[in-house]
Amino acid sequence: MAYQALTEQTIIDYIKSRPALERVFPKATPLTAKEVGDGNLNMVYIVQSADDSSRSAVVKQALPYLRILGEAWSLTRERMRFETQALLQYNKLTPGLAPEIYDVDDEMSLVVMENLDKHLIMRRALVARQRLPHFADHISTFMARNLFFTSDLYLTGLEKKTLQAEYVNPHLNKIQEDFVFTNPLMESPENKWNPLVDNEVQRVRTNGALKIAAAEMKESYMTHAQALIHSDLHTGSIMVNAEDTRVIDPEFAFYGPMGFDIGAVLENLVLNLAAHYGHTADPDARAEYQHYLLNMLRDTWQQFVQKFETLWLENNQGELAPPQYWNYPGGQVAFAEFRRRYLLNLLRDTAGHGGCKMLRRMMGVVSVWDIASIADPAKRAIAERLAIKIGSRWLLAHEQVATIDDLIAIVQEEMADVKN
Amino acid sequence: MAYQALTEQTIIDYIKSRPALERVFPKATPLTAKEVGDGNLNMVYIVQSADDSSRSAVVKQALPYLRILGEAWSLTRERMRFETQALLQYNKLTPGLAPEIYDVDDEMSLVVMENLDKHLIMRRALVARQRLPHFADHISTFMARNLFFTSDLYLTGLEKKTLQAEYVNPHLNKIQEDFVFTNPLMESPENKWNPLVDNEVQRVRTNGALKIAAAEMKESYMTHAQALIHSDLHTGSIMVNAEDTRVIDPEFAFYGPMGFDIGAVLENLVLNLAAHYGHTADPDARAEYQHYLLNMLRDTWQQFVQKFETLWLENNQGELAPPQYWNYPGGQVAFAEFRRRYLLNLLRDTAGHGGCKMLRRMMGVVSVWDIASIADPAKRAIAERLAIKIGSRWLLAHEQVATIDDLIAIVQEEMADVKN
Repeated sequence: MAYQALTEQTIIDYIKSRPALERVFPKATPLTAKEVGDGNLNMVYIVQSADDSSRSAVVKQALPYLRILGEAWSLTRERMRFETQALLQYNKLTPGLAPEIYDVDDEMSLVVMENLDKHLIMRRALVARQRLPHFADHISTFMARNLFFTSDLYLTGLEKKTLQAEYVNPHLNKIQEDFVFTNPLMESPENKWNPLVDNEVQRVRTNGALKIAAAEMKESYMTHAQALIHSDLHTGSIMVNAEDTRVIDPEFAFYGPMGFDIGAVLENLVLNLAAHYGHTADPDARAEYQHYLLNMLRDTWQQFVQKFETLWLENNQGELAPPQYWNYPGGQVAFAEFRRRYLLNLLRDTAGHGGCKMLRRMMGVVSVWDIASIADPAKRAIAERLAIKIGSRWLLAHEQVATIDDLIAIVQEEMADVKN
Repeated sequence: MAYQALTEQTIIDYIKSRPALERVFPKATPLTAKEVGDGNLNMVYIVQSADDSSRSAVVKQALPYLRILGEAWSLTRERMRFETQALLQYNKLTPGLAPEIYDVDDEMSLVVMENLDKHLIMRRALVARQRLPHFADHISTFMARNLFFTSDLYLTGLEKKTLQAEYVNPHLNKIQEDFVFTNPLMESPENKWNPLVDNEVQRVRTNGALKIAAAEMKESYMTHAQALIHSDLHTGSIMVNAEDTRVIDPEFAFYGPMGFDIGAVLENLVLNLAAHYGHTADPDARAEYQHYLLNMLRDTWQQFVQKFETLWLENNQGELAPPQYWNYPGGQVAFAEFRRRYLLNLLRDTAGHGGCKMLRRMMGVVSVWDIASIADPAKRAIAERLAIKIGSRWLLAHEQVATIDDLIAIVQEEMADVKN
């Protein structure tokens, strides 16, 4: 049907008109609908069976407010398209690690998906010091599979470039390009930072080596079309509970460097670790959970590497360096060395991108809830100062790091210096 | 008009029907047309004024032979589109360094351009030991301007990604991916090489470090969307005379690594240098011209760097690292260091890609006329052996080289070892 904005009234007839949704809401089921979004660019409805509250779904529809007609409206619809097609891709490659997609209606700029009402945004779970025994396993699977299977290691050149062409996403790219890599590191009116860390912020903005490294990471983001990345994979884009992990909100998805996604996950664990200087007064409880987070960080990387390399060995059908290329005496040794170097470059990109992203959260327009929610500015400054130091060192060291323990050692050394 | 294949008869009425061509062929001029192509994928006509032989043009039209209907026909037309739009881009950014485009007709898959009848394919000029006093100047301008003005250093992110989307060229990419980086370095039925250098060829194909480096250069080719590159910029794609230089045949154009183009130019000068062991019997004349070629190689790189950096300083309006990012005490020093590192990476990519391309010409399906035209296999082997050694060393050293003289030193060291 032609586009029309749904309401709490019209959505129920719409749902009943969609054959794909009968498995969620059997025919005669009476339904209720409630709008729960922030009404900015999308309407978000929760639709529920009046008989059986376990039957529910989220409906997300791009919304043409008067103020976003014309060009802006086509961008809003496009944003919905990127999100929807990336979620479908995740459903295919990593079912159970993203919300299940029940129905898609491009004409209506609308997607119907699983209602994750038993999950919490991961940041909140981490601030509450929850245990997430499966997180490292789940997120490493999510990254290994989605990155590997969209890379030149698996796809043919034609398949990869065809998929890449479906994710040309320059408007969303620009948000990350400006607000991760550039504006936070220079004077820009939208930047925000705690006056108590002004010295540290100004030192970053005038540190030549750091700025060169950040510009080089931006070059990587703008030019290195390595795999289909989520491109906003922080702990606010992950829903969790003790059993389950779901990645949401992939509207920034495009072909970029894998390390941008891996770095996002790891640096957000570090930011949360830093936040506990503000949130967790008891030093033992704090140290214990920080230790838990560092193990989670190490496990995430190590499991990622192990899974990625296993996928590579089991599915080396892309055109980058096919099996027959290594088919000579000594070829397997060379292939192993090629994999080692490829994965080492991923670690180095992870450090560089992770470092940039830590810095931007401390001095750019986008703060991070884990730390921003610390009410006392002095306590908040402890976390911020630590994040600035670790972010700077990850970024400066990114071409030299050799193992995940090098990144963890930087975190531990800077933690040892915290005056609390 | 709807597509129809032109003939020597129908082309004249067609030309007269095109208003854009009146400046080439004034209205009443009687015309003659002659088909001169190899009739493979395109028809190529030379159209000339019967009154005034200085008035002429080349017409190139994609051709739907019976054997290339369906998918193949759309690929052939697409190939013509890439060539045409890249030539128009060169006419805009570097007028006088590519054939002038007089008219384009997408419906007819046809382009009308300047007839370069006073030019020679550059390989032939070099084998004849011609002096090309402006070549280094011309080709460095061609590369500096076309690469800089299509990169993230000049274009906004949106402009770059929009242009990039017009050059999604996976079918032509695959030809280079397979036949530059992979197949020549492994057993593949289409490979050809001189039996007299079989030892050297087998050593390349079983050299782990070399194969890893080639796979890494292929990753660069497949993923590093740095600028709009010609992607086949060898000396068979350059027409020259003593005054003039024109780049032709950009049907492989896409967003890739700049070093692939620069490397193509430099390695073809080295291959020609090697070819003179077969073509030039007089040792003094040979040494003198080889010295001339090495100076041309050095000048090409040095002028490229100087021009590229000047363009950058004068037009730093892209979003990668804008002027205000460096606007702090010491910022200009950091910006200079960022440029130095960027240009050093270009040199290293140039060495890596140039090395791969030298190797493929010696042991893959595509030979190089400069050397293949040496009739005596033993003399040819001298050139081939030298090219294999230099290509291997450029590729293996590509991460360490610091200046163009490092690349030239490799050439000279290997020349000193030639037994002739």
